[in-house]
Amino acid sequence: MSSKIQDFTNRINQYLDNLDLIRKPEELYLPVQYCLGNGGKRIRPLMALLAGDMYGGNTNDIMGPAAGMEIFHNFTLMHDDIMDQAPLRRGKPSVYKKWNANTAILSGDVMFALAIQHIALCPAQHLKQILDLFNKTVIEVCEGQQYDMNFEILDKVTEEEYINMIRLKTAVLPAACLKTGALIAGAPQAEAQKLYEFGEYVGIAFQLMDDWLDIFGDEETFGKKTGGDIVANKKTWFYIKAFEMANENQLRDLRNAFTNRIYNPEEKISMVKNVFLQLKLDELSLEKMEQYNTRAFACLDQIALPENNKMELRTLAQNLLNRQI
Amino acid sequence: MSSKIQDFTNRINQYLDNLDLIRKPEELYLPVQYCLGNGGKRIRPLMALLAGDMYGGNTNDIMGPAAGMEIFHNFTLMHDDIMDQAPLRRGKPSVYKKWNANTAILSGDVMFALAIQHIALCPAQHLKQILDLFNKTVIEVCEGQQYDMNFEILDKVTEEEYINMIRLKTAVLPAACLKTGALIAGAPQAEAQKLYEFGEYVGIAFQLMDDWLDIFGDEETFGKKTGGDIVANKKTWFYIKAFEMANENQLRDLRNAFTNRIYNPEEKISMVKNVFLQLKLDELSLEKMEQYNTRAFACLDQIALPENNKMELRTLAQNLLNRQI
Repeated sequence: MSSKIQDFTNRINQYLDNLDLIRKPEELYLPVQYCLGNGGKRIRPLMALLAGDMYGGNTNDIMGPAAGMEIFHNFTLMHDDIMDQAPLRRGKPSVYKKWNANTAILSGDVMFALAIQHIALCPAQHLKQILDLFNKTVIEVCEGQQYDMNFEILDKVTEEEYINMIRLKTAVLPAACLKTGALIAGAPQAEAQKLYEFGEYVGIAFQLMDDWLDIFGDEETFGKKTGGDIVANKKTWFYIKAFEMANENQLRDLRNAFTNRIYNPEEKISMVKNVFLQLKLDELSLEKMEQYNTRAFACLDQIALPENNKMELRTLAQNLLNRQI
Repeated sequence: MSSKIQDFTNRINQYLDNLDLIRKPEELYLPVQYCLGNGGKRIRPLMALLAGDMYGGNTNDIMGPAAGMEIFHNFTLMHDDIMDQAPLRRGKPSVYKKWNANTAILSGDVMFALAIQHIALCPAQHLKQILDLFNKTVIEVCEGQQYDMNFEILDKVTEEEYINMIRLKTAVLPAACLKTGALIAGAPQAEAQKLYEFGEYVGIAFQLMDDWLDIFGDEETFGKKTGGDIVANKKTWFYIKAFEMANENQLRDLRNAFTNRIYNPEEKISMVKNVFLQLKLDELSLEKMEQYNTRAFACLDQIALPENNKMELRTLAQNLLNRQI
């Protein structure tokens, strides 16, 4: 990790650790403290600061909105965990498990308002544009979550629909962070928009890698058991492509596995993984990621700044994809 | 209803009816349409417009934020209904009942973002102040809902704590609407603040009247059965004052009723109502409301505008309390 990334990350952590959350009623604010205190890599605010720094902007002007984006991100996790019935978040009980669903709803809502308070710390001349971008992003993230939930009960989801869902659910927020940082630092509108697209492509590649790791990742390095998405019948890129490309025998195996006729999870994982490998989805998905990465870097290439200024973002994106951060 | 109030209400309804909510995914937006299409008196945006009009402001400049406040209000109802397990809202199934809790969570979240989009339509020079006021208000409304939930499981709640809870949960939003309208219309800060306080006092009186009507209201006029709060053991002003003032016999009756030793609801209501009447809480509460009303009108008196300009707001507040609107 570069010293700049380290320095920015420290400043973000410090900013977030120093939020005044010891407030009453504590039933409302303790879950907010718990959620924000549970770490995470703070990639989104880091992207905002790096984008602003690239244009020589004063990162102090960006810190508020950057923190706002991170608070918003954590709010979505708090609500998503209720909807997805996810009992764990970053290795600890999620808020609705530790407390209850009502607490996670209301503490989430107050986090949303806290997020906008920090967005509103944006320098006045940029406030309207940054706020509009933020609102558009929030709406898209909600749409992404809705599509994700819809997919659970849909028979057929296309690759295009899946990519659009992860774009909305995962990619538009880092994209908005990059654009926010650049705009506050005075970047030209067109270049800020290129950074937005860079963020979208990186975000999509990142989510595809997440799906890949869930199947083919090294359990030791990855730190969690693989095959979770398969066991949960999750309609990932692999699920969708497999049904699209499978021959009759493979289709039968997939159907057997995903209709839970095979009840032993290990057997189910191995059966599905086998089909994925036969169809070379492991390699195809890496090619797909490479495509998105190439598009991402093409956006960066269109930015008229010395290569040296772009280096941090380029490295960050590469490291994200290689999970070295 | 004055023709001005009628005209403003029509314009608000038209604005809200014309929101573009036919969007995809429809699973996300149909509940928003349903919720906003379910009417309500639109008192909050009306207050914003009346306050702005009082200062000769262009109400078109106020319409966006006014609608944003109403959308936010409906968002809180959607989430509160989950938390309070309230199956009905304005006589129709609440969103979590008609769909499910996940839908009510996520469609609520997207409404929150839509609300801020409309707040952001505020004229640029006022945006920062209006947004800050809005965020502060949202946070307070969440705090109010949390206190309300806390009170359910607390043994003892003081009158002061109760008044503060209804101030946060109910009164700060109309207060913020009034201040927003006035500020956009160019009112002096101190007078906008006086209108805020006027709204707080009116809001508290309104909520006390709500509690009163739930016990002593005429079922025909009121349109719903009385005694609901008593049956639900709700810690209203009456509950709190009764326990504070009761003699030994009355205390025994209250305890019997509220610990559900009396199981017949009609019997329970009559037993509790009887104690309330013995303690003259019906009259005492009306005096209390009158006190808040007096404070409210004292705020209006401190505003240096011709009495004629204040007439609409004065009438609105009186009608609200008499439930003639």
